[in-house]
Amino acid sequence: MARAVKKSSKKTPSGKGVKTSGAAVQTRIDQEARGVYERIQRRQKPQMKLPIRSLSNVRYRPTPGYFQLKGKNKIRTLTVGTVKTFAQTLKMLAMSKVLIGQGKHSTKREAYYQAYNWGEAAFAAQEESDTVMDDVEAMLGVNREKLHFRADEHGGEVAGELIVIDRDRRTRERIEIDCTRFGSGAYSVPTIVEDLQFRTKAKFILAVETKGMFERLVEEDFFGEWHCILVSMGGVPSRACRRFIRRLADERNIPVYVFTDGDPYGYFNIYRTLKVGSGNAAHLNEYFCVPQARFLGVTPDDIVKYELPTHPLKDVDIKRANDAMRNDPFIQHYKKWQSAIKKMLTMGVRVEQQALAKHGLEFVAKTYLPDKLKDKSAFLP
Amino acid sequence: MARAVKKSSKKTPSGKGVKTSGAAVQTRIDQEARGVYERIQRRQKPQMKLPIRSLSNVRYRPTPGYFQLKGKNKIRTLTVGTVKTFAQTLKMLAMSKVLIGQGKHSTKREAYYQAYNWGEAAFAAQEESDTVMDDVEAMLGVNREKLHFRADEHGGEVAGELIVIDRDRRTRERIEIDCTRFGSGAYSVPTIVEDLQFRTKAKFILAVETKGMFERLVEEDFFGEWHCILVSMGGVPSRACRRFIRRLADERNIPVYVFTDGDPYGYFNIYRTLKVGSGNAAHLNEYFCVPQARFLGVTPDDIVKYELPTHPLKDVDIKRANDAMRNDPFIQHYKKWQSAIKKMLTMGVRVEQQALAKHGLEFVAKTYLPDKLKDKSAFLP
Repeated sequence: MARAVKKSSKKTPSGKGVKTSGAAVQTRIDQEARGVYERIQRRQKPQMKLPIRSLSNVRYRPTPGYFQLKGKNKIRTLTVGTVKTFAQTLKMLAMSKVLIGQGKHSTKREAYYQAYNWGEAAFAAQEESDTVMDDVEAMLGVNREKLHFRADEHGGEVAGELIVIDRDRRTRERIEIDCTRFGSGAYSVPTIVEDLQFRTKAKFILAVETKGMFERLVEEDFFGEWHCILVSMGGVPSRACRRFIRRLADERNIPVYVFTDGDPYGYFNIYRTLKVGSGNAAHLNEYFCVPQARFLGVTPDDIVKYELPTHPLKDVDIKRANDAMRNDPFIQHYKKWQSAIKKMLTMGVRVEQQALAKHGLEFVAKTYLPDKLKDKSAFLP
Repeated sequence: MARAVKKSSKKTPSGKGVKTSGAAVQTRIDQEARGVYERIQRRQKPQMKLPIRSLSNVRYRPTPGYFQLKGKNKIRTLTVGTVKTFAQTLKMLAMSKVLIGQGKHSTKREAYYQAYNWGEAAFAAQEESDTVMDDVEAMLGVNREKLHFRADEHGGEVAGELIVIDRDRRTRERIEIDCTRFGSGAYSVPTIVEDLQFRTKAKFILAVETKGMFERLVEEDFFGEWHCILVSMGGVPSRACRRFIRRLADERNIPVYVFTDGDPYGYFNIYRTLKVGSGNAAHLNEYFCVPQARFLGVTPDDIVKYELPTHPLKDVDIKRANDAMRNDPFIQHYKKWQSAIKKMLTMGVRVEQQALAKHGLEFVAKTYLPDKLKDKSAFLP
């Protein structure tokens, strides 16, 4: 316990204006519980206030640079109908407080099974406990990871000019992880990155869609030549991966360039999610978006310039692109993205990042990326 | 070139009886090409011999311990109908020889795009080039990785008492990667593990199904207390992950214990695939299976003993279990597996590894696994 308090009292810098130590989260939990307790003491019905989580309650502005809640809330009052959820929410808050005190983390699934001992407040299925966890997260306005809950997901892989600073589980000794020293392998990002620290002189972070391209760039010694940090997102980046890039970029003030396939999935599901977040998790974008991200490629223009092999757009691609043009506040804000998407739709084709291999395996590292990095102002916003 | 030859002439120990250096693979490629060339010189139709890849051409014996081809072959002769595939196969062999010479690796997708420059022999889709690659692999009797082709897949994550020895891409300097020094993170296994070497005094390898459980065991300092190596397979283990465990277990003579959910997916898709391989890739099981693997849990008996929360078997679970009882040579060979599966079907339930959290987060590391490790003879074969 003493150890955990010591740990959480250490200043852990995180996203701008988001310095929430373990002790501060415990205090927030105490406040919520006290609010409920005091209303009961005053013989009033206890209640909890939660933000409404949907695209209709979201706005986009270039500053701060992510989807934000407009501020609509719902109030959950204790009634016969809500008594079980109410109890579960309070128990979940208590579980989080204990975890923070112990310096331990629980997966969402472990939380569900731990709740087997809650008697009548036990969950019927994990979906129920996940929903209550989302509520707690939104209610406290801190991300789940700070409540010491984590998902069972990949955090991405890292190689390049970066030292990650962590602690040994047993000795609490400081550990320095040198991401240039993994040969053909990589550093696997843990699901909780809140307490990691960083040392680096890297000039930029290059976040790539596929592990295949990541290993290509490692094999070509791209990070050694360009003094950068490579991150493999493995498709749509997980929360851990997005949070890792965000904290690293914020704290060391490093630009972030994104390199995906040239298709709606790469543009919206990967890049847009990384940069500004998503609608249904708007209460979290503050922590998980990377507003400083810029889109390097592959762009529709690249297809022409580099004579790249393409595939026809699928119906789902066309639908996704049209939806984004009509409904996505981020795309609507940027003329350059609208032009790029119109061009893609006119050409009727998509392109994979590995299509660059048509010109030889080393082409991406020796020609394409160096070309691009010469004129960063041409990156899409 | 000189560097690559030097590298490949270095003895790289691998699976038993499977010592195939880069130079040896190049020689095999030359032999195949010469066979074709000489038949043409003799004015005969050139041909290639390929093993038939299906369950009907497979047998299981406890020694060597993996599904083996029974030896049926098909002959592909050059005709008007096969001319394109024939040319593609020869070009693919040539690409592999160049890659080995350069010390580079190509993803399957990059290989497809590189073949854009083959004129009439270019592939219409990646499925075509993948099939030709499978043919080349089966024909030469070496795994794709030794031909310097790789998939775009996860290799699994590792933490524990292991030093992985690799080389720096730029300097070729020897790199030692200490897998006890990753804090809350892990070592991410690359897709090609053929040239890795290992140093360890670990008592066993514990291969776990989920990253969530892996992080639980890291957080509980399980590997420090039990002097073992933890591997997160992330579901069904990829080829890279299986090959990594196999090479490590063979070379350092370490037992392998497997810890998955207690359901047909965990028993067959994960454990059985890891241990003996699969039917449709029987020509590769020699390299990718881990015959020394034993199944630690979660077993149907554990559900009763530890009073674990369960879920009803789904229809797909029941079908998979019945299919295995009827058709799987591995299950048919082991009475203990048949009893376990019958017990599961009678109980009608499955169990997740994280269900152990019902007894507290640390239960798995402090009680369940230590209990199990006291009596390894009770592990399922």
